[in-house]
Amino acid sequence: MRLPTGLDQAKFDTVCTALRKIVGENWVVTAEDRLSAYDDPYSPGLSSDFLPSGAISPANIDELKSILRTATQYGVPVWSISIGRNYAYGGAAPCLSGSMILDLNRMQAIEANEELAYAFVEPGVTYVTLYKYLQDKRQKLWIDCTDPGWGSVLGNALERGVGYTPFGDHAAQLCGLEVMLANGEVIRTGMGAMEASRTWPLYKGAFGPSLDGLFLQSNFGVVTKAGIWLMPEPESFSAVELTFPREDDIVGAVDALRPLRLDGTVPTATIANWMRIAAANTTRAEWYDGKGAMPREAIEKLIGKMGIGHWNMRFGLYGRPKVVAENLKAVQKAFAKIERVDFAITGYHKGETVRPEHRSLAGIPSVELMPLNWLGGAGAHIECPPVVPMVGKEVFELYRRRSELFNTHGFDHYCGLTTTSPRSFINTGSIIFDRNDFAQCKQARELGAALIEDAKVMGLGGYRGHISEMDLIARQFAFNDHASMRVNEQLKDCLDPEGILSPGKQGIWPKRLRESGKDEAK
Amino acid sequence: MRLPTGLDQAKFDTVCTALRKIVGENWVVTAEDRLSAYDDPYSPGLSSDFLPSGAISPANIDELKSILRTATQYGVPVWSISIGRNYAYGGAAPCLSGSMILDLNRMQAIEANEELAYAFVEPGVTYVTLYKYLQDKRQKLWIDCTDPGWGSVLGNALERGVGYTPFGDHAAQLCGLEVMLANGEVIRTGMGAMEASRTWPLYKGAFGPSLDGLFLQSNFGVVTKAGIWLMPEPESFSAVELTFPREDDIVGAVDALRPLRLDGTVPTATIANWMRIAAANTTRAEWYDGKGAMPREAIEKLIGKMGIGHWNMRFGLYGRPKVVAENLKAVQKAFAKIERVDFAITGYHKGETVRPEHRSLAGIPSVELMPLNWLGGAGAHIECPPVVPMVGKEVFELYRRRSELFNTHGFDHYCGLTTTSPRSFINTGSIIFDRNDFAQCKQARELGAALIEDAKVMGLGGYRGHISEMDLIARQFAFNDHASMRVNEQLKDCLDPEGILSPGKQGIWPKRLRESGKDEAK
Repeated sequence: MRLPTGLDQAKFDTVCTALRKIVGENWVVTAEDRLSAYDDPYSPGLSSDFLPSGAISPANIDELKSILRTATQYGVPVWSISIGRNYAYGGAAPCLSGSMILDLNRMQAIEANEELAYAFVEPGVTYVTLYKYLQDKRQKLWIDCTDPGWGSVLGNALERGVGYTPFGDHAAQLCGLEVMLANGEVIRTGMGAMEASRTWPLYKGAFGPSLDGLFLQSNFGVVTKAGIWLMPEPESFSAVELTFPREDDIVGAVDALRPLRLDGTVPTATIANWMRIAAANTTRAEWYDGKGAMPREAIEKLIGKMGIGHWNMRFGLYGRPKVVAENLKAVQKAFAKIERVDFAITGYHKGETVRPEHRSLAGIPSVELMPLNWLGGAGAHIECPPVVPMVGKEVFELYRRRSELFNTHGFDHYCGLTTTSPRSFINTGSIIFDRNDFAQCKQARELGAALIEDAKVMGLGGYRGHISEMDLIARQFAFNDHASMRVNEQLKDCLDPEGILSPGKQGIWPKRLRESGKDEAK
Repeated sequence: MRLPTGLDQAKFDTVCTALRKIVGENWVVTAEDRLSAYDDPYSPGLSSDFLPSGAISPANIDELKSILRTATQYGVPVWSISIGRNYAYGGAAPCLSGSMILDLNRMQAIEANEELAYAFVEPGVTYVTLYKYLQDKRQKLWIDCTDPGWGSVLGNALERGVGYTPFGDHAAQLCGLEVMLANGEVIRTGMGAMEASRTWPLYKGAFGPSLDGLFLQSNFGVVTKAGIWLMPEPESFSAVELTFPREDDIVGAVDALRPLRLDGTVPTATIANWMRIAAANTTRAEWYDGKGAMPREAIEKLIGKMGIGHWNMRFGLYGRPKVVAENLKAVQKAFAKIERVDFAITGYHKGETVRPEHRSLAGIPSVELMPLNWLGGAGAHIECPPVVPMVGKEVFELYRRRSELFNTHGFDHYCGLTTTSPRSFINTGSIIFDRNDFAQCKQARELGAALIEDAKVMGLGGYRGHISEMDLIARQFAFNDHASMRVNEQLKDCLDPEGILSPGKQGIWPKRLRESGKDEAK
């Protein structure tokens, strides 16, 4: 356990006493064993660099306001989490050791509207909770969820997470935020800035500037509630699965997909290389026992035995059956150009039971975490995904460069491509390691940094990053001598002058911790 | 002509001399006759309250930077316009008299990419220019335009303007902004914050907060360039026109439309009442010569003679012919429930000539301004549109209340409903008057204020407003004792501490002009 910078134990105890008066005894945690719930379970050997001093859970925004007042008074930074399931990116752990976790999971209100297809959610609402709520009320609305669905709907949307249905761009479904600023002021964005607003969750604009974006991947405020658009249950959907046998098939596959994404035929899609399928279902030891990255022959053997493609694409088509059928024809025509492509199509009518493997395409959350355990031991992974244009040759170039980096660092190349946005992919690439293996942890960190540096050479920026990589990624956004970060810092100083909210998130540090300060603080 | 507050003529001449050194003699205007180009042509008798002191047009961002430095040095506020065709909302005229118009129309670069369906545009690019550019290069991309198409693509998107195709939510198509802040610093948002970024116009997110929304309907910076998503030319489209005979048909029409908008069958739609059609094609004198609002019998007679509906809905369906045909069936089925509904459907295959009345549905800009001249004289109009939920009974209630207000103020009720966002309408309602008629101007202003006040009673906020109404509308966003405006003001002070950029826009005033200051300044 670490104390907040500048506080001794006695002072910290005083703070905790004050905080307990706000939320009650049970909702302030400082003892080591209970704090471990906030560890990053996938930390690449850096747990001790990202330790909270404690955790506090408000029940409502009044308590939250008092917490922020106390935190400001004593100079205690708080690291906001909704549920803390931000696995691969740091979990619940703070960028700045000694921060107190501000755990919002007790705030769990839901209010859904079937007619206008939206819900209001508080930070503690998980995908599973929201799904069950809609089922219980028999509201014919779909959610879009991550896999697994145990995380916070709001938290994931704020981090710009993605899912698998037409509503897979989670940040794009946000409509109306309620935000508490560091000074305790509550604002509502967009139409919510009007009292008794009828259109807060219905129209994304504001009169004047839109402030919503300020609170994505951000430490400018604490989001306490959001409107989120939901999808009316479609009359039918078809799960479409395509496999492509050869590594360089990705060029044709991407170029065939692009027009279908741009004209809306395919509402979103994910593409997985062999390793993404293999790592989700097997361990490496089942296939190969040598050191270093698996050689090409072993990969080919795995592909053959598992009956998968080097590339595996998956998406849903949704709507009235005849429209789905027409769209399916267009899909088949577009991909038929690629040699040895294989199609699997599974159709579902409204009300039919969806097979487990297609549930994420229908917004049905799974509750199981499938740990990636490719290398054996205690499986963990980190991510540092770049965004890449949806152009076959550019995706393939990135793939080859990343393959080389994965392999030279001793890892097999795990590659996922997600296009919830129609002109680009988010290229996830789990670096899987045994978190109890010190050497592997170090290699994973080095690979992470190398991937980030290499993406920059290609003009590709990061979509998200592990807490240990946030400064590195942020520094790459260097246009006009880092003008963007200068403005972020100006805004940080404006909205959170004492710098108590989530210091260091996405590389944004408060004034007192900039430059040497932030390293010193660790 | 007004001088900037605090400057005498000699000082102002010094400023103009300095500015002429930056942009050349021809690009600084101060003489009355040439300045009149920046008048609000639709001002409701308030021209003399919104007078610029001069105008300056930079050729590029280097000149812009020097202009902002000089403006800051002498305390001269500048009112940014792209082209200044913000008719009905103030045109090119500034909120604060004495501001210099910062006219960006000379910056006209375009760069389009067919493969990934986007363009970069500078502020001076009009819909017509962009359309011709794509035609000349034979790039198979559609634009979405307002009607007429003489305005700035970028300017309209920043004001959250709307059009008629699936890409009709103009702000939603923005992807990547280049912005100059008051201090001359240039930032690029999102992925553009990376040098030589490959994905700036392709992915809307950033690493960290999204700053784009800060520059919509805003005076926080000057947007000098933007990426904008374009629509690949569809294989076919059908123009669908429905008319509904009775006033209360709007309830059923809206409720039938909603599910089709929510599931994406209908990509956007506009609904016009009888008056919107009549005013675009005739004058009132052709129908009625009494004083006050036209009585019901005269309206019914007009409807019969013109062969229109009390309500007239219009939208396009786009895509492969068989998909369009299926969607058309769903549309017909949904609206067939409404008695005496009339359908007109016109299909177009790729490459076919589109009839003039359907061009806006195909993103083909018209170059003619059709002045609304309902009352004769010098036709002008102002707008103060609220956003209303897409629920039949709520729309009808708003319509009836607005009808009453229009009528008691002596006007006929002009009503347009646009749903580029799937859960709500923007309810335009042109208040048409003869700008040379002092009494009519006064009535128009009073009606505008009454409509805004009444919308608030219903919990409905403004989408946009005339420069003379911006303070009134902004004050209505009063949640938590105007917390939203307090934050806007904090941000204004942070990003433009000298308050030189477009003071008063959307009710946001710089520190020195807040409270009494802003009235004094007029």
